[in-house]
Amino acid sequence: MDLKAYLAQRREMIDRALEEALPEEHGLAQMLDRAMRYSLFAGGKRLRPILCLAGAETVGGSPEAAMPAAVALEMIHTYSLIHDDLPFMDDDDLRRGRATSHKVFGEALAILAGDGLLTEGLGQLARAGLKGLVPPDRALAALDVIARAAGKKGMIAGQVVDMESEGREVDETVVRFIHNHKSGALIAASVTSGAILGGGGESQIEAINYYGRSIGLAFQITDDILDIEGDPELMGKETGGDEDRCKATYPGVAGRDRSWEVAQEMVAEGRAALSVFGREADSLREIASYFLTRRK
Amino acid sequence: MDLKAYLAQRREMIDRALEEALPEEHGLAQMLDRAMRYSLFAGGKRLRPILCLAGAETVGGSPEAAMPAAVALEMIHTYSLIHDDLPFMDDDDLRRGRATSHKVFGEALAILAGDGLLTEGLGQLARAGLKGLVPPDRALAALDVIARAAGKKGMIAGQVVDMESEGREVDETVVRFIHNHKSGALIAASVTSGAILGGGGESQIEAINYYGRSIGLAFQITDDILDIEGDPELMGKETGGDEDRCKATYPGVAGRDRSWEVAQEMVAEGRAALSVFGREADSLREIASYFLTRRK
Repeated sequence: MDLKAYLAQRREMIDRALEEALPEEHGLAQMLDRAMRYSLFAGGKRLRPILCLAGAETVGGSPEAAMPAAVALEMIHTYSLIHDDLPFMDDDDLRRGRATSHKVFGEALAILAGDGLLTEGLGQLARAGLKGLVPPDRALAALDVIARAAGKKGMIAGQVVDMESEGREVDETVVRFIHNHKSGALIAASVTSGAILGGGGESQIEAINYYGRSIGLAFQITDDILDIEGDPELMGKETGGDEDRCKATYPGVAGRDRSWEVAQEMVAEGRAALSVFGREADSLREIASYFLTRRK
Repeated sequence: MDLKAYLAQRREMIDRALEEALPEEHGLAQMLDRAMRYSLFAGGKRLRPILCLAGAETVGGSPEAAMPAAVALEMIHTYSLIHDDLPFMDDDDLRRGRATSHKVFGEALAILAGDGLLTEGLGQLARAGLKGLVPPDRALAALDVIARAAGKKGMIAGQVVDMESEGREVDETVVRFIHNHKSGALIAASVTSGAILGGGGESQIEAINYYGRSIGLAFQITDDILDIEGDPELMGKETGGDEDRCKATYPGVAGRDRSWEVAQEMVAEGRAALSVFGREADSLREIASYFLTRRK
């Protein structure tokens, strides 16, 4: 398959759905909508929604069936970036080559835009179930998976431990905790919620969840490596930021070679979990391998 | 009915459910749980969950049927207080007689604790539907109502316009917008989601929603009046804060007498909307009247 064309086509499909889900608004609180849209339409890779739609296809569902979860995931991912970029968190001025939300709108509106995206993401998934666009029980199961991954035992826990670890001596276990929670959980929830909305059976969903957890870790390790070796122009942000901020990173605790080894291992494990599927899992397979060659 | 005893009994019931929903945790991210619990168990009045359970009873449901929504509402209300108290928002050091979250845990953890409460609130309501503790379609309908009220066209819009109005000349229309959105929307969603989970019919839910919107405005107007005339000791916070910060308030734009008139009118309208119900709506009636006599 032509992965590049596939990703571009999916990005377009997802952007259309996001545009529908968060149209421009006029009214007293329009600055809020502007701030939400500023970050949601900032040229993201749409990795999580792409994985979500691919999860649905892998179990024989249509990508459209998973779109409400895909939209929720991108909104939630975007909210987490806005909040993480704040001065007292990771303090980033640049994201995807553009000024971060609080730089443009101020801290207050940035926080509220994040809050709005999180609420809207989960809300519109519930609405899709209510309207029968997706079966109600599947909508609830997807909401459960996504809220867990985004919540206090998932993404937010990862951010807390990540912040607490700055400038401290930590070991590989802690870095794994951070990566598995801060980014791995939502990546796993992306394919898993897709498989749920696509109508997958229990063992299929389990296999896809295992795939998601494996490639989630691989993704974050390659992210750490790109922060050292990547091209700032391609990535739309300065490299070397992790080291400057004494961030806990995989190369930092395990060395570059071991990190690369683990990333490769995780991709192999993720692909192996897909052995129960035939050609319909090819997109998930290709995406996993792409993590090892990506340059941004 | 003995309203004081009723409220105390309900508070206790709700506190037990909240304790179950957010137990103490140990682990790498335990500071997050501590921050979430610090604000959730800070002696709140539990007004929104009480209204939610009363909404269920009014349509003939059991209060237990509405508990997952009640828990979600209190978590979401608490998250909004944490974020609103932040320095670049309303900048409050004291809430319910205790130091606010960012004063104790720092800005970063306060923001994340808020994020966690919002995610957990909506997530556990979805989970209740998934497990069949409440019927799936009702869980989705309650999620929809609550997410709308909490989101970009509800509470968050109210906070945005409230902040933008500080120090500016605004009129009664703008203050009404702020009050109806910042606090009214979630109060209305409280009784409405309760009526939904209690199994109310469409016209019953409509009547209860009208009641909620009316008393939501009344509550916020009396809040403004209490900020001028209330007893700081009873309220657990300094009074006069609205004026110090040049906040848009009802007495500020319409005068004390007109404000009082509107509050009374709103309570009367709210009670009138309940005329389709018999004695089973007495708790909602009493709560509405209590807004006019409350001292904190």
